[in-house]
Amino acid sequence: MVSLPAGQVSGLARALPPESYLSDVAGAEFIDWFARCSAAAQCRVTRAPLTELRQWRFDADTGNLAHESGAFFAVEGLRVRTSYGPVPEWSQPIINQPEIGILGMLVKEVDGVPHCLVQAKIEPGNHNRIQLSPTVQATRSNYTRIHQGRSTRYLEFFTKAGAGRTLVDVLQSEQGAWFLRKRNRNMVVQVAEDVPAAKGYHWLPLTELRRLLRIDGLVNMDTRTVLACLPADTFPASRPVPVGDVAAALVLSSTGQGTSLNDMGAVLRWFTEAKSRHQLTAHRTPLRDLPGWRGTPEQITHEDGRHFSIIGVTAQVGDREVAEWDQPLLFPKGRGVVAFVIKVIEGVAHLLVHARFQPGLLDGMEMGPTVQCVPENYPQGPPRFLDYVLTASRERLLYSAVLAEEGGRFYHSQNSYLLVEADDDFPVAVPDDYCWVTAHQLTRLLRHGYYVNVEARSLLACLQSW
Amino acid sequence: MVSLPAGQVSGLARALPPESYLSDVAGAEFIDWFARCSAAAQCRVTRAPLTELRQWRFDADTGNLAHESGAFFAVEGLRVRTSYGPVPEWSQPIINQPEIGILGMLVKEVDGVPHCLVQAKIEPGNHNRIQLSPTVQATRSNYTRIHQGRSTRYLEFFTKAGAGRTLVDVLQSEQGAWFLRKRNRNMVVQVAEDVPAAKGYHWLPLTELRRLLRIDGLVNMDTRTVLACLPADTFPASRPVPVGDVAAALVLSSTGQGTSLNDMGAVLRWFTEAKSRHQLTAHRTPLRDLPGWRGTPEQITHEDGRHFSIIGVTAQVGDREVAEWDQPLLFPKGRGVVAFVIKVIEGVAHLLVHARFQPGLLDGMEMGPTVQCVPENYPQGPPRFLDYVLTASRERLLYSAVLAEEGGRFYHSQNSYLLVEADDDFPVAVPDDYCWVTAHQLTRLLRHGYYVNVEARSLLACLQSW
Repeated sequence: MVSLPAGQVSGLARALPPESYLSDVAGAEFIDWFARCSAAAQCRVTRAPLTELRQWRFDADTGNLAHESGAFFAVEGLRVRTSYGPVPEWSQPIINQPEIGILGMLVKEVDGVPHCLVQAKIEPGNHNRIQLSPTVQATRSNYTRIHQGRSTRYLEFFTKAGAGRTLVDVLQSEQGAWFLRKRNRNMVVQVAEDVPAAKGYHWLPLTELRRLLRIDGLVNMDTRTVLACLPADTFPASRPVPVGDVAAALVLSSTGQGTSLNDMGAVLRWFTEAKSRHQLTAHRTPLRDLPGWRGTPEQITHEDGRHFSIIGVTAQVGDREVAEWDQPLLFPKGRGVVAFVIKVIEGVAHLLVHARFQPGLLDGMEMGPTVQCVPENYPQGPPRFLDYVLTASRERLLYSAVLAEEGGRFYHSQNSYLLVEADDDFPVAVPDDYCWVTAHQLTRLLRHGYYVNVEARSLLACLQSW
Repeated sequence: MVSLPAGQVSGLARALPPESYLSDVAGAEFIDWFARCSAAAQCRVTRAPLTELRQWRFDADTGNLAHESGAFFAVEGLRVRTSYGPVPEWSQPIINQPEIGILGMLVKEVDGVPHCLVQAKIEPGNHNRIQLSPTVQATRSNYTRIHQGRSTRYLEFFTKAGAGRTLVDVLQSEQGAWFLRKRNRNMVVQVAEDVPAAKGYHWLPLTELRRLLRIDGLVNMDTRTVLACLPADTFPASRPVPVGDVAAALVLSSTGQGTSLNDMGAVLRWFTEAKSRHQLTAHRTPLRDLPGWRGTPEQITHEDGRHFSIIGVTAQVGDREVAEWDQPLLFPKGRGVVAFVIKVIEGVAHLLVHARFQPGLLDGMEMGPTVQCVPENYPQGPPRFLDYVLTASRERLLYSAVLAEEGGRFYHSQNSYLLVEADDDFPVAVPDDYCWVTAHQLTRLLRHGYYVNVEARSLLACLQSW
């Protein structure tokens, strides 16, 4: 067992007092609104056997678990073979959700200050009931109303031409370890007219939303990925950035004013080379009799007790399109660590990205953080750089918070997100599958899909949290 | 039956005499070398039953046809469901070749003139035995020598760091109608030192290679896609471009100096929107008992006689790593039409790209040409814009040649490639799945994979053929 950092040291440690709690980063208006939402949130999630989930069926032939409408998603099997990493071959359950959903944030400038229309959203897998989601967070099955429930509020701003100015519109992947080729449409749309915030929604200054990323478990994954896709210079910071060498180096890294160690051509060549170096195949296979996995009416688990299990829940939620429903959820074992090592090179902060294979990714590999793992899954020894980020001294911990993954599909999934400044001894020369890039380079790549994985996108959003 | 243009009117019709034959576009040195290669080419390809191909086996369970080493490629089944196009569901055989190969062109400047090291390469599916290929054209199975044959010549320039200056290195898709998620590494590497041309290889001026694109069946698909990925301004044209309004508009389109109707943000949003509008799923399925297809020992064919068949051949080739081998090939029925409609908008030539679904593409859709079809496959009536490009008057035919597709996997596959100037009545407003882009915008997108399909890349290369 590797011990994890406490996760209470939120915020840019050197730039802010170490005791960053809600009142340090949020205004009274937000705190009041969020308290009211929390008090009003009606949510009851109870475990239910997989075999008894209403409207869900195990297929007689494959054993795959799917919604009887054929919509939403299905739990299937995946068989993986790869020359990447220590395990050459494995099988696992995977969530197959081929449809493209919308993660859309509505933005409006009020007196020159950009505001985001956030939602206090309940998801059945949230460990803390409500989290801040984008304005719209809907699968295609949701917004085409397969469930015959209420229509999705504010959807028209993201689907009708001319409803606003589109600042971001790009397909991005989600967890490649758990989703099969899933991608969502990340959108930011700016409106000029007044759009009233409905019950459960709130117009929040963008800088305040970014600062709220320092609070454990508050800003959900969908908000983080959408924020990451918004170029830092679209709405420049309206307050002075923290002083100090690292802070200045981070600003240069985000704005692209400083010199990057590798130009964009070199980064793209490195990534192509990494994809080509490894053989990676992942094929769907029946969930039934998946090698290494055991199914009971209650759950599907790995025989060594690690990785994750598939469980069922009944959700009763007060504010959703449908008030009660059953669904499977993926329940990860252990808390993950997601970390960027950041090194100041020639005055510019560089992030150490890792060309990471994950079997559910469309092209097998995307650029991930320096470290991304659940330590318990590595009994033979920690993966590269894990010990380095977990033993970083307090003053090198630029950011630390425990953030949750998508509560609509994952049950109580949390990761420790860390930004760790490298010490001077940390070499500039790195192993083949790693590359130093600036934050601005990652943001440029985010104009396109399938370059930067969702965990790295979360950390990139956190980099703007001061 | 729709009649096809003759294909003999090669070249930029208005910019060159209509009778463009080899001697009009190629120098004496090339002609002499190519004639010698043709005379020396030893190649014998004979049909063989699929059941008797040496080292190939039908899997007992799935009926998939694979090499007994597990390498090279396999013929499997694909089941497609989509809301795109008139056919909502179908099954088809597909070539599964998960490994990443290298298509690499070596470039060297001689007295300031860029030269390419081309190869006169025999492929078993070529209708005309030899075509001009890039310096290296090798699957991973080839260059890791699964076949225990000769090593791949010049490979080291593309696999060893520092062997040259990498100008292009990007993964690009290939025929999404026939290949399952295939991609190859398109590379251009510039060397400074003298690299002698081995037997069967030739240092050819880049501009001459581009002009040779006007000759039917000469420049192979792999060369075309690699040339398309080379930005037009890397090696600017060394001779004056043809005069005239369209010619000038094409130059502005290629160099990016003119104004584009849609900026890059708008093009990317249009493409994301098109991908999101359609539901597209394609899943592997056993080749055995594929609905609509019939297998005999000789071949696998569609029951209506259209589309393509899978056949077997024995190839005896004098100059390859292995002198004799058996393999399956995909034999398309009918000759396809691949065409861009080009319209001059505000003095800049714009190409009408089509967000085209093809089931084997990684993300389902890429930007294809305005027209891409085999007319015989549309007995109910021609697809959009087909009649328009086939009935274009001679003076609007900017380019026309019959070019072959990859002869290593396809048997006698040829398409009529056309660049057609739109008349003034052709509307600027186009259907949802279409978008006007400049050649420069396509080239910028080609820094990234999976935006521009291989047929559009071929035409983009042809746009540089004056």
